[in-house]
Amino acid sequence: MSKFEKVCLVLGAGAGIGGHVAARFAREGYHAVLARRSDEEGLGRLVSAIESGGGSATGMMVDASEDGSIEDMVARIESDIGPIDTALYNLGAQIGNRRLLDTPHRTFELGWRLGCFGLFRLAHAMFPAMLERGGGTLLVTSATAAVRGNAGQHSHAAAMGGRRMLCQTMNAEFGPQGIHVAHVVVDGSVDAPDTLGKLLGDKFDAYKASKGEDGVLDPANLADTYWHLAQQPRNCWTHEIDVRPWTDTPWWNDNPPAAINTSARDGKAAFGGEKD
Amino acid sequence: MSKFEKVCLVLGAGAGIGGHVAARFAREGYHAVLARRSDEEGLGRLVSAIESGGGSATGMMVDASEDGSIEDMVARIESDIGPIDTALYNLGAQIGNRRLLDTPHRTFELGWRLGCFGLFRLAHAMFPAMLERGGGTLLVTSATAAVRGNAGQHSHAAAMGGRRMLCQTMNAEFGPQGIHVAHVVVDGSVDAPDTLGKLLGDKFDAYKASKGEDGVLDPANLADTYWHLAQQPRNCWTHEIDVRPWTDTPWWNDNPPAAINTSARDGKAAFGGEKD
Amino acid sequence: MSKFEKVCLVLGAGAGIGGHVAARFAREGYHAVLARRSDEEGLGRLVSAIESGGGSATGMMVDASEDGSIEDMVARIESDIGPIDTALYNLGAQIGNRRLLDTPHRTFELGWRLGCFGLFRLAHAMFPAMLERGGGTLLVTSATAAVRGNAGQHSHAAAMGGRRMLCQTMNAEFGPQGIHVAHVVVDGSVDAPDTLGKLLGDKFDAYKASKGEDGVLDPANLADTYWHLAQQPRNCWTHEIDVRPWTDTPWWNDNPPAAINTSARDGKAAFGGEKD
Amino acid sequence: MSKFEKVCLVLGAGAGIGGHVAARFAREGYHAVLARRSDEEGLGRLVSAIESGGGSATGMMVDASEDGSIEDMVARIESDIGPIDTALYNLGAQIGNRRLLDTPHRTFELGWRLGCFGLFRLAHAMFPAMLERGGGTLLVTSATAAVRGNAGQHSHAAAMGGRRMLCQTMNAEFGPQGIHVAHVVVDGSVDAPDTLGKLLGDKFDAYKASKGEDGVLDPANLADTYWHLAQQPRNCWTHEIDVRPWTDTPWWNDNPPAAINTSARDGKAAFGGEKD
Repeated sequence: MSKFEKVCLVLGAGAGIGGHVAARFAREGYHAVLARRSDEEGLGRLVSAIESGGGSATGMMVDASEDGSIEDMVARIESDIGPIDTALYNLGAQIGNRRLLDTPHRTFELGWRLGCFGLFRLAHAMFPAMLERGGGTLLVTSATAAVRGNAGQHSHAAAMGGRRMLCQTMNAEFGPQGIHVAHVVVDGSVDAPDTLGKLLGDKFDAYKASKGEDGVLDPANLADTYWHLAQQPRNCWTHEIDVRPWTDTPWWNDNPPAAINTSARDGKAAFGGEKD
Repeated sequence: MSKFEKVCLVLGAGAGIGGHVAARFAREGYHAVLARRSDEEGLGRLVSAIESGGGSATGMMVDASEDGSIEDMVARIESDIGPIDTALYNLGAQIGNRRLLDTPHRTFELGWRLGCFGLFRLAHAMFPAMLERGGGTLLVTSATAAVRGNAGQHSHAAAMGGRRMLCQTMNAEFGPQGIHVAHVVVDGSVDAPDTLGKLLGDKFDAYKASKGEDGVLDPANLADTYWHLAQQPRNCWTHEIDVRPWTDTPWWNDNPPAAINTSARDGKAAFGGEKD
Repeated sequence: MSKFEKVCLVLGAGAGIGGHVAARFAREGYHAVLARRSDEEGLGRLVSAIESGGGSATGMMVDASEDGSIEDMVARIESDIGPIDTALYNLGAQIGNRRLLDTPHRTFELGWRLGCFGLFRLAHAMFPAMLERGGGTLLVTSATAAVRGNAGQHSHAAAMGGRRMLCQTMNAEFGPQGIHVAHVVVDGSVDAPDTLGKLLGDKFDAYKASKGEDGVLDPANLADTYWHLAQQPRNCWTHEIDVRPWTDTPWWNDNPPAAINTSARDGKAAFGGEKD
Repeated sequence: MSKFEKVCLVLGAGAGIGGHVAARFAREGYHAVLARRSDEEGLGRLVSAIESGGGSATGMMVDASEDGSIEDMVARIESDIGPIDTALYNLGAQIGNRRLLDTPHRTFELGWRLGCFGLFRLAHAMFPAMLERGGGTLLVTSATAAVRGNAGQHSHAAAMGGRRMLCQTMNAEFGPQGIHVAHVVVDGSVDAPDTLGKLLGDKFDAYKASKGEDGVLDPANLADTYWHLAQQPRNCWTHEIDVRPWTDTPWWNDNPPAAINTSARDGKAAFGGEKD
């Protein structure tokens, strides 16, 4: 018999988005399951913090790139812990900017395994029980690279572009069966010590300072948006949403913006953006 | 001296999205200003309902297609009622499906005046005071026609396509100055007696029934999403979001879906969608 | 009785895209009608150049923002010159970058009149005869601003966003009736003396030099692509296509690109793009 | 020493798009290399037909899903046949519509291997020589599933979405180095006996008849568009283009269209599309 009424599973539970979403759901009465590949100690701290706050949580070490790992995790949660009401697929595949010829085949493949295939496997393993219960929610953290491919992002963008289309195919098949799939385009830097922090190392603080006040996404605030999405009643579901800090240029805009002529009141054209 | 601390202005305040957003913000302590072109009695009912619930609200009759009307409204609110913290541009320009040759020039122009130009005018009139106060929020109700143009939607789609791009240009200029612009793609039918209800007349109930349980967007639920967007802290702003009922096919998918072969386990290809 | 077998009408026929498309079609046996608002002398030179090359052409001075102007032009061509087989809507509405508050109402409206309403009026006037003849082609020059709205582009982007959606609605209604509508996203600077040249004035040559070899779109080459689109048989029609010089960053990419780490072969992540 | 001056390599050379593009380039003086996985006899017929027409061609049996196969093919062509000036990646991964739970892990993975990874491998193997020569062209046949994910298309759309993003990342890195990458969204059925023909079997003729006159993409005409793209001078490159038959509804439109009221001249709204 399962011990908890409803579970929120976070796959990719670091100290950034994943950990904060787990904590947010735990605060609302969910049992949070936090799964990640490495740093068991860090995982333990996240679980403890939730428990100190009066919530309940379980930590699991899972390497999502291994055959059977996601499937075993889902089976174990459903049998031993409780029914997965909401899952967040929060695994990233960002490896920084690399030239194509500096991107080995195995790197490109691993990007796909974590960025796209793992999501397919999670849905495969998890949806049957959700369908039996009449529904559920699958939140998917995504990235700018899901909607446009920059130079250097060969592995990441190919994985994320597949992830976005997979979210659409799953939404199309499972939405009318009660499963809410939401794709969150995180179009800005997140104050996430376990990912961006590790990528930047000791430049992380300087980087955040350079972004100015409120210039980096606070994962606690982002978790509120995830929570809102998961609570939308089924007459009013969002499939795709973007988020970024106020001072960040959205991915579709030029950065920096072309100069804006402030003395153009005379009606003479002021040429700025060359091609808009 | 203004009477209220912060105002939520709804331009296009019928009994659907507009009225519910006004009520939602009033419930949270905003003074709601509900502006619409016709049906003063209906407007009065919306204001009364807000006041009965303990909120405060003002109704205004405004024809947004008239020169000076939006400008006067904003000036009057700012001087007599209170500072506009949040505005919802909720004017529609849907006239149903018409062939191009059945769409007169004046219809096409009116579509643009309500669908696009009025938003520009509202921002023009309202942003200077918001900038002085360090920020504000502009929510814009939009439609599927902003992202794809169906046959028969010449007037509506041209207006909404302009509206969407205008939201992007405003976001690009004013986001970094503290004004949050959010574009909500309403990709489903709303249970709105003043718009869809009037278009469908006595077929409205049958239409809603045909959509099944929770098959029509409930504007009260939609108002929760608008509220969430307006409350996002500036490190975590959404510019675009879509919403639809669970059983509705998103605009990008085929409707109805191609048949899915359920006995394809043998590995033989099952041809369904002809071109995906 | 009309004098020519088939006409290619170019509305917005300067010395850039418009003039070159007219010349390209004239070279293939079309009678080219070149229409523009100003510089009758420049227009005369374009017509003469076509005639010197053995083609036939007519120049017309037309102010597309005036009521009845487009309609009269179409009627006159159809009755006096020949049937319009292909039309190119090439009117721009780029006024350079302006702040919202430096963009007067009349500027925003004029942008729409030239950028969107004129296209609607042309189709309205021209399609009935095309339908009677079983088909035709409408080519529409468009811009980056049709697909994303940059700061400073309020007027232009709102007009172009409307233009793009209108192309989709017209394609949806008229494609199956034999009228090919193609929307060309010109996502780069064109070597066009009458538009970009005038905007930049004596900085035009330096600008072109700064773009490097083949760094600016040559309108003669672009005209080949327009010609190709117009000749696609109806089993194989393109609705949307983009074009830019090889060294230009597409609108969806960051410019300049984030640094690409060339020494990343050791497998350590190299952080570049902050948010992809 | 290589025998031919310039090679057009087609990976995925059946009797549809691939074979026709090979023949089109051979007609223009390229040596065509046609590579495919199965049906050596059919491959021989395509090569013979090119040779009968005065062109030169080589056929190769290649299983692109095997490690080393694409790499060996490229090396062999470059050393024994001639420099690859243009390549067409034409491998599909369409398996028809399958429910998620009827899509085995290995099917999803194979979809990615053919739909996305193979393209990465081809570029990896081929671009170094192209860069040494100062440029080249990579044409990529793509599908509707690259831009939207329908129910049942889990494997195909995830692969194609990755493919599209990979085309963008490659274009961003290699465009400014002289390699033209073009992504062709084939948004309609192709008269291709080796793919659609095999999927539909003896229903293929009835299917084509049901589409009406010119209702199916003729790969010979499509090859003209591929040829045009490959010949664009570098000041004027297209990255993305769509194609479909005139009577086909573009992927972004509703199919069938909502009813259009033809008697709406009285100004009364006619409700058609429920949510545009």
